[in-house]
Amino acid sequence: MPLSARIDAAVSSAIRAGQAGPAPAKLAAALDYAVTPGGARIRPTILLSVAMACGDDRPGLASAAAAALELMHCASLVHDDLPCFDDAAIRRGKPSVHRAYGEPLAVLTGDSLIILAFDTIARAGTDDPARALELTRILARRSGMPFGICAGQGWESEAKIDLAAYHRSKTGALFMAATEMGAVAAGEPAEPWAELGARIGEAFQVADDLRDALGTEDSLGKPVGQDERLGRPSAVTEYGIDGAIDRLKNILAGAISSIPSCPGEAQLAGMVRKTAERLVPVRRTIPGE
Amino acid sequence: MPLSARIDAAVSSAIRAGQAGPAPAKLAAALDYAVTPGGARIRPTILLSVAMACGDDRPGLASAAAAALELMHCASLVHDDLPCFDDAAIRRGKPSVHRAYGEPLAVLTGDSLIILAFDTIARAGTDDPARALELTRILARRSGMPFGICAGQGWESEAKIDLAAYHRSKTGALFMAATEMGAVAAGEPAEPWAELGARIGEAFQVADDLRDALGTEDSLGKPVGQDERLGRPSAVTEYGIDGAIDRLKNILAGAISSIPSCPGEAQLAGMVRKTAERLVPVRRTIPGE
Repeated sequence: MPLSARIDAAVSSAIRAGQAGPAPAKLAAALDYAVTPGGARIRPTILLSVAMACGDDRPGLASAAAAALELMHCASLVHDDLPCFDDAAIRRGKPSVHRAYGEPLAVLTGDSLIILAFDTIARAGTDDPARALELTRILARRSGMPFGICAGQGWESEAKIDLAAYHRSKTGALFMAATEMGAVAAGEPAEPWAELGARIGEAFQVADDLRDALGTEDSLGKPVGQDERLGRPSAVTEYGIDGAIDRLKNILAGAISSIPSCPGEAQLAGMVRKTAERLVPVRRTIPGE
Repeated sequence: MPLSARIDAAVSSAIRAGQAGPAPAKLAAALDYAVTPGGARIRPTILLSVAMACGDDRPGLASAAAAALELMHCASLVHDDLPCFDDAAIRRGKPSVHRAYGEPLAVLTGDSLIILAFDTIARAGTDDPARALELTRILARRSGMPFGICAGQGWESEAKIDLAAYHRSKTGALFMAATEMGAVAAGEPAEPWAELGARIGEAFQVADDLRDALGTEDSLGKPVGQDERLGRPSAVTEYGIDGAIDRLKNILAGAISSIPSCPGEAQLAGMVRKTAERLVPVRRTIPGE
């Protein structure tokens, strides 16, 4: 089974578990709406790639971990799109959840996806509770306070931002979760894999800044120019466009050289290179040109 | 240590874990604000009472479970108070989180508390991962979709409400979590304890309906008359005030007789009776009288 099919199957199975029984129909539908069609599914792809590089001896648990991470990511998108944050009308090329289902169901969709993420790991963990518990701890650490994506979003409410902590938590955290959870799902320690995740996250942040500055709404599936409009810190405002592209390439080279020694090291380096190709912008498309 | 001190210590310890490191200060403060001063802490009190009735052989895990349940409950209050739901200005006698910290931080506070709830169980579960994982599953089931408090809140967006499913999930779910998690934390199976939780939850719902119809904002610490104003189903509109009080007493008697045989059965019955005394309104205080 190709990775993307394995991820889609795991995400669908997790969502179906949240829709069983006499559930309220609109919220049940909104859960599905929030996770399909998926974006690049880049975080669960990294997670499974690391798990496979480490031997993938518990594939059910690794798939559940990948689904959990994607659910958490989708939850953050749903809440970040809310009117009190980005007030985004469009996400992944279709109306954002609060535009399609209203604000109350968007709040509940995010909450339900967060809870479903932890449930998904726990349900798959019966045969190896210790490993499942460590996956839970990593997912919580990289999602919540004080180090996770909630903390990252929380920095945007501060008058004085700790920029390093902001980027590490806002974007880096779930990429660190991806590499750490991939290793743990396959029985390896998390710690040696944190750096790879951090570097991929850093690359992704720079790429996102570049896309926000260069992209069009059609190709991106979400509004552009948000960083400038909202006065958010960005690699483009800091280094300029060419400087940011150079920086992105350097970070990705560092990511590849940080991969710990493991059976699937070469293949994993290939995956990171492929991710890199997807991230580095090849042409400038400036809105209105 | 009295139960209330044990609960407060466990909740504080969980919150401190979410505030470590270079966390954004306002969100860190909002986490604390959302859980203190506590209300009656009735759910964690039930959880620990059941754990103690079952022998409480892993008190650290039971305390963590109690804290996790309280964090989840507080998260639901923060999100339910948001402008898109109840738009409550007051909670527990002080401004609601979104009034004190703004809407973005209120959304993030709820998200962070949900994640911290799962992290709290996982952190305490190192010595008994299997038990911790079962606690995680119960907390997820009773909080999320399709059976938990998210589902309960989701029913309010449906044109046609399944009333039984609505009450069971909206109010009953976290009481079922309390009895089930208390038993599991002490090494007992969850299932025989579900009914006690369901009945306490039902009693609490009727009591809440009575308080909403009879109470004053000062004594309740939150707005009253919300059910009627928002057209929500209520035991008072269904049975009248005296009928609802009778119903409450019957449910509590049923709760006591449902307690499974266990070492601390008599003491637990006493706790339920004490809860009952707190729930049944003793006098009518009609606003404006």
